[in-house]
Amino acid sequence: MNDKYYMKKCFDLALKAKGRVLRNPLVGAVLIKDGKIISEGYHHGYGMIHAEIDCFNNLKEDPKGASLYVNLEPCSHYGKQGPCTKEIIKRGIKKVVISNLDTNPKVSGIKELLDNGIDVVTGILEDEGLKLNEKFFFNIKYNRPLIALKYAQTLDGKISSNTGDSKWISNKFSREYVHKLRNDYDAIIVGKETILKDNPSLNSRIDGGIDPVRVILDSNLSIEKKIKDFKIFDLESDKKTFIATCKYSTNKNLNIIRCESKNNRIDLNDLVNKLYAMNLGSILVEGGSTINYSFLKENLVDRIYEFISPIIIAGDRSKSAFSGRGVDNIKYGYKFEIEDIKRFDTDIMIGAKNVYWNI
Amino acid sequence: MNDKYYMKKCFDLALKAKGRVLRNPLVGAVLIKDGKIISEGYHHGYGMIHAEIDCFNNLKEDPKGASLYVNLEPCSHYGKQGPCTKEIIKRGIKKVVISNLDTNPKVSGIKELLDNGIDVVTGILEDEGLKLNEKFFFNIKYNRPLIALKYAQTLDGKISSNTGDSKWISNKFSREYVHKLRNDYDAIIVGKETILKDNPSLNSRIDGGIDPVRVILDSNLSIEKKIKDFKIFDLESDKKTFIATCKYSTNKNLNIIRCESKNNRIDLNDLVNKLYAMNLGSILVEGGSTINYSFLKENLVDRIYEFISPIIIAGDRSKSAFSGRGVDNIKYGYKFEIEDIKRFDTDIMIGAKNVYWNI
Repeated sequence: MNDKYYMKKCFDLALKAKGRVLRNPLVGAVLIKDGKIISEGYHHGYGMIHAEIDCFNNLKEDPKGASLYVNLEPCSHYGKQGPCTKEIIKRGIKKVVISNLDTNPKVSGIKELLDNGIDVVTGILEDEGLKLNEKFFFNIKYNRPLIALKYAQTLDGKISSNTGDSKWISNKFSREYVHKLRNDYDAIIVGKETILKDNPSLNSRIDGGIDPVRVILDSNLSIEKKIKDFKIFDLESDKKTFIATCKYSTNKNLNIIRCESKNNRIDLNDLVNKLYAMNLGSILVEGGSTINYSFLKENLVDRIYEFISPIIIAGDRSKSAFSGRGVDNIKYGYKFEIEDIKRFDTDIMIGAKNVYWNI
Repeated sequence: MNDKYYMKKCFDLALKAKGRVLRNPLVGAVLIKDGKIISEGYHHGYGMIHAEIDCFNNLKEDPKGASLYVNLEPCSHYGKQGPCTKEIIKRGIKKVVISNLDTNPKVSGIKELLDNGIDVVTGILEDEGLKLNEKFFFNIKYNRPLIALKYAQTLDGKISSNTGDSKWISNKFSREYVHKLRNDYDAIIVGKETILKDNPSLNSRIDGGIDPVRVILDSNLSIEKKIKDFKIFDLESDKKTFIATCKYSTNKNLNIIRCESKNNRIDLNDLVNKLYAMNLGSILVEGGSTINYSFLKENLVDRIYEFISPIIIAGDRSKSAFSGRGVDNIKYGYKFEIEDIKRFDTDIMIGAKNVYWNI
């Protein structure tokens, strides 16, 4: 048994809360004494007790002299929870092994541990840890949610045909993966056209999946009077469907996010900041060409999940994933890098990140 | 040492003639006696001696009682070369080991070998053999060249921007691979617009590469008077640049392929048949949107090499790879299947085959 093994264990524990931590990090912790795991814990969800404390709470024996493995530097400040460092010191822990430092400037846990004579080892499976908490580190660094676009296109780059047909470009395996993505992101944004045309549920149908917050872009609040017609509002008991709009509403049953307007549309930067203030750390945009392009123009596309189905439909009036003015010269195109290629039976998915960010 | 090992050796020998055999198959042969390779041979190029005969010609000892490994069933008919079976029988070969049967109906080599008391083993590495000679088997089955389209597009499916800019969408590693493809195909087809705009050489710049036959689509023969301006005609000493047109030309220095017209354009089926009659078994189309769509409509797209660069350029007047009427419903799209995904540094390439054919 070695440091990497225990750190991997922390990651596995941390992942139990995937989709539940919002702007918080995913954190797992294990306590090792005499070569044995004597307790495990993880951060269960946004605002809840930290992994270290959960681990202490699960103890059945005295941890004095034990080593604590935890994937993120323990906190040393009073946030929604008290500082974990105090508890680590109080419990007589001898050594703390960490994957990633907390980039939150309020946190200086390592210094406090060292000052109290505790051994600290850092950087174990550091890259894996960064990847695990990519959204959290992105949030800290850029002070806004990480935003991903998802769309399905044909081999010739069309998201709908001449007649607007788009059902179904991607196959069922690709669509299943979208349900997994919806569990991974805190909120989904769609346009009101999607609601009017497809009447989707926009839930995560995977086992134990968490439905994301759903945000409908509707600058004129035109669907206000028709909400009974749509499935997305049937799910209203969960209070997870919001309408982002530039208008005022007097309907108390609606969750409205009132946004500034920009060129007679919702100011996306304002919307994104408001969603961030609601502690939503990651957003999946499932829009059409116009919405996709609006986010792109505002430099709000951090990642793309592009599903490709191997069919060709051509069509001079068919739509591509981004509709708008575009760039005249290839060299001024928006640059991404391919992170990931997945196959879903006949389809493939390209995962790409915008080159402007890193964590 | 086993059958698969020697058959793999045949494949390696066969591949020495890649790009040189036109409508002929790639064939390699080895002779084994007392567990030792006593001779090797391969089919060097279109109309040249067969692999078996090359192998016999390279002998330094008596092959009586030897086993012959050859990836394709030996011929038994008089074509451009005499029947190999006669030579195999005459040389006293005891056993013949084959990967693929020859689907050419004129060939019944196995029967003749068996009738003469020679052991025959077939089906060794059969799938690999089929792949190796895919173009040959396609030619026999469909009686026309195998046609591939190659294009480079952005992540959002654009082959040029609003202003027509397309230099360079793909990176240099992708473009290097195109040179390899040009070596693998017997002919390249381009539109006259490509010549006017880019003045390309359309050669294969790989070591030992064979430049393909170059065919320019020019229904009105409008570039006839300007040929001195273009690199592709500087290479004229190789007599490999042809103009496909519906017009007549009196210029004796030009290689003209006169084609039937269809809707005031070159009848592509007629062109393809004429290229096949020139023994060109495979064609790489490096056209723009309009040419690509013309081939698609005529069901003449057997394979696609789609290079994807991870940039987004959008643009409502930018071009996709297929320009034309298109299909209204997704379900009537032209169906392909993904055969191959390659990465070229930042780019990826999707290789896809049309589902209508198999060999």
